Amino acid sequence: MTAFEERIEALKKNGKKAGIDAFLVVSERNMLYLAGFSALAIERFAGIVIPVETGVPMVIVPKLEETKAREKSAFKEIFSYSDSESPALLLNRVIKELKLKKAIFGVEGTLPFRFYKMLVAVSSEIRTEDTSALFSQLRCIKSAQELGMIEKAAGIVSEGIRAGTEFIKPGVTELAISCQIERTIKESGGESIPFCIVLSGTNSAFPHGETSNRKVREKDIVLMDVGAVYGGYYGDLTRTVFVGEATEKERKIYRVVAEAQEAAIATVKPGIKAEKVDAAARAVIEEARYGEYFTHRTGHGLGLEVHEEPYITQGNETVLKPGMAFTIEPGIYLFGKFGVRIEDNIAVSKTNRRMLSHITKELIVV
Amino acid sequence: MTAFEERIEALKKNGKKAGIDAFLVVSERNMLYLAGFSALAIERFAGIVIPVETGVPMVIVPKLEETKAREKSAFKEIFSYSDSESPALLLNRVIKELKLKKAIFGVEGTLPFRFYKMLVAVSSEIRTEDTSALFSQLRCIKSAQELGMIEKAAGIVSEGIRAGTEFIKPGVTELAISCQIERTIKESGGESIPFCIVLSGTNSAFPHGETSNRKVREKDIVLMDVGAVYGGYYGDLTRTVFVGEATEKERKIYRVVAEAQEAAIATVKPGIKAEKVDAAARAVIEEARYGEYFTHRTGHGLGLEVHEEPYITQGNETVLKPGMAFTIEPGIYLFGKFGVRIEDNIAVSKTNRRMLSHITKELIVV
Repeated sequence: MTAFEERIEALKKNGKKAGIDAFLVVSERNMLYLAGFSALAIERFAGIVIPVETGVPMVIVPKLEETKAREKSAFKEIFSYSDSESPALLLNRVIKELKLKKAIFGVEGTLPFRFYKMLVAVSSEIRTEDTSALFSQLRCIKSAQELGMIEKAAGIVSEGIRAGTEFIKPGVTELAISCQIERTIKESGGESIPFCIVLSGTNSAFPHGETSNRKVREKDIVLMDVGAVYGGYYGDLTRTVFVGEATEKERKIYRVVAEAQEAAIATVKPGIKAEKVDAAARAVIEEARYGEYFTHRTGHGLGLEVHEEPYITQGNETVLKPGMAFTIEPGIYLFGKFGVRIEDNIAVSKTNRRMLSHITKELIVV
Repeated sequence: MTAFEERIEALKKNGKKAGIDAFLVVSERNMLYLAGFSALAIERFAGIVIPVETGVPMVIVPKLEETKAREKSAFKEIFSYSDSESPALLLNRVIKELKLKKAIFGVEGTLPFRFYKMLVAVSSEIRTEDTSALFSQLRCIKSAQELGMIEKAAGIVSEGIRAGTEFIKPGVTELAISCQIERTIKESGGESIPFCIVLSGTNSAFPHGETSNRKVREKDIVLMDVGAVYGGYYGDLTRTVFVGEATEKERKIYRVVAEAQEAAIATVKPGIKAEKVDAAARAVIEEARYGEYFTHRTGHGLGLEVHEEPYITQGNETVLKPGMAFTIEPGIYLFGKFGVRIEDNIAVSKTNRRMLSHITKELIVV
C-alpha cells in the first residue's frame, strides 16, 4: 500500500466512526497530503471525492491541470472540464457514479461557499459536516519520510541563517541580510521561502516585525526568523545574534530564553499535554521575572503548512504522540530596546523526542 | 459622506435590487474596501453585517483586533470576543438586533464553510446567496483616489525595475537582481512586494517561471515581472531587457510585443468590451505569425487584489467603464529559447484612457 493509500484508508476509518459517508476535499494542502498533488481551487473548482464504504477516490480538475493530475495524482480516476464546461456537471456525475446522492459529506471548514453550493445543488438529500478535525488528526502524525522532509527543510534554513550571520556587519541593511539568506536557501535546494524576517536594533522587539531598510549598527541585536519549504514541508527557525558586543543584560536575557527553550524541549515526550511544553518555557521566563515580555505561544505544529496542529500554547490539552512535529520558540521582547527569540524544530519520538534542527544556539557575537 | 459610506450605500442599493436583505462580509479585501480595515478571518471569525434596509453596519472581531478596529474601522458599532468566548453568540446578537433572523444574506463565494454554518445556525429561516458579483461590480470602478494609489504603486514598481535594469550584468544571479529590485521598492515606500520575478535566458520562456540562482550571461534576455503595494493597492509591471546585444529575431519579437501592447492600449475606452482589448493585442501577434506563442490572457484588473475584475481575455463581454483599472501584458514565449513580455497599468477614463504606469518600453540593451 502506498503512503497515499494508507492515508485514505485511515481517513475512511475515521470517517466511518464519525458517521460520514464520503469526503469532499478541495484545499491545496489536504489534496497534496491525500493524493500527492494539488490544484489551487480559487478561481476554478478542483477537488477529490472520497467514498468511505465502496468505490475509489475520484479527482475533478480544470483542463489546465489535467496533465499534472495524471502525472502526479495517486488516484487515477480523473475527470477534467474546460473553461466552457461546468465543474458542477462533473461533480454531479461523480456523485451519481459513487451513489452518494443521499450521503453525509465531510468537508473542510475552509470550503468556499461557492463550492459548498455546488455540492448541495447535486441533491437535496446531501448533508454536510465540518470534518476539519479528522484531516488535521491525520496530518499531525508524521511518517518517518515526512519528518525527514521537515529535517531537511530545517537544515536548509540553517544554511541560510549561517550565511546571514556571516553577512552581518555595521552598515548592511536588514533587507540585504534577508537577500543573502534567501540566496543561500535557494542554492541549498529550498523550494520556496515564504518568509525571511530580519529585524535589527529596536525592531527586534516586535514579535511580528517586518524586514526594513534599516542599517545594522555597532552593538545591535539582529533577529532572523526564516521559513523554507523542501518536498512541500516547512522548516522554521529563529536565531538572534549580537553585533560587536553583547551587554550584560542582553547576555542574561539570551540565557533566559535559551534555558526556557531547553526546558520546553526536555518535556517533550509521548503522553504529555501540549500545554505542559508551553508551561515549561513560561516557567523559566517567569522565574527570571520576564513573564510579561513573553507575549506569544511557545510553538506551533509544522508540516505541509507552517502553522498547524499541535499548537504549543496555554490551554491546549492535546496529548503529544509519536510523529508530531512542531516549533519551540520562546522569546522576550523589551519594547523600545530589543528582543530575543530562539526557535528550533522538534518531533515526538516513540520514547521522547528527536530534534529536527541542528544549529548552534550558543550566543554569537559577530 | 465618506468614501466608505458611499460604498456601503452603493452596495445596499444593488443589494435591494437583487432582493438581498443584508450582507455578511468576511474577506480581508472586501472588509478593507467597505470599512477601511481588515482582520484576517482564517483561524478566528471576523466580519461585518450590513443591513440593506434599516440599521447600521456592525463589526465583529476577535479581542486581539479590537484596538485596530476601533482606530481604523469606518463603522463604530464594534463587538469583540475573547478566545474563551464564542463569535457565534455575537453574530446571533447582532442579527437579532438588526432584525435579520428571516433575512436573505448576500455572502462572498469564498466564505469559509465554518462561518457559513455559524450564520445559518442563527436561525433556520436565514437564506444565503452568493453575491460575489455585487462586490466586484463595486470594486472594479475605482475612484480618483484609488487610481492615484495604483499609479503610485506602479511608480514604485518602476523605480524597482529601473534599479534592477541598472544592476544587470553578466555573472549576477536572477536572485541578486530580484533583491536589488525589492530593496529599491522598499526604499521608495512600497508596503509589500508580493512577487518579484526575474527570469534570464531560456527561463524567460516560462510565462510562470520562478526566480532562480541562474547567472545572467552575455547575450541573455532578462524578464522582470514585479508587483508592489502602496496604500493597499497593487501596481504590476513587466519589462524585458537585453544583455550585451539583441539579435535581429529578438528585436523583431520585442517589436511585435510592443506593437501588440500599443494596439491593445489604443482600444481602451468606455463602452468597449474587455475581449476587444485582448483581441487587439492578439491580432498583432497573430499577424506576425506568433499567435500560438502568446499563451495567456492580455491582462487582469488591478486594485486591492492583484487579480480582479475586469479580466482582459477572450470571451469576456464585460463593457469597460470609466474607473476600471487593469494590466495590458501581451507576451511571446519561444520554449527553449527566450520570452518577451511588456506589461503596463491603465485605467479607463471618461473619454478614453489614462496610463497609470510611466516607464519607457523602448528596447533596452544593458
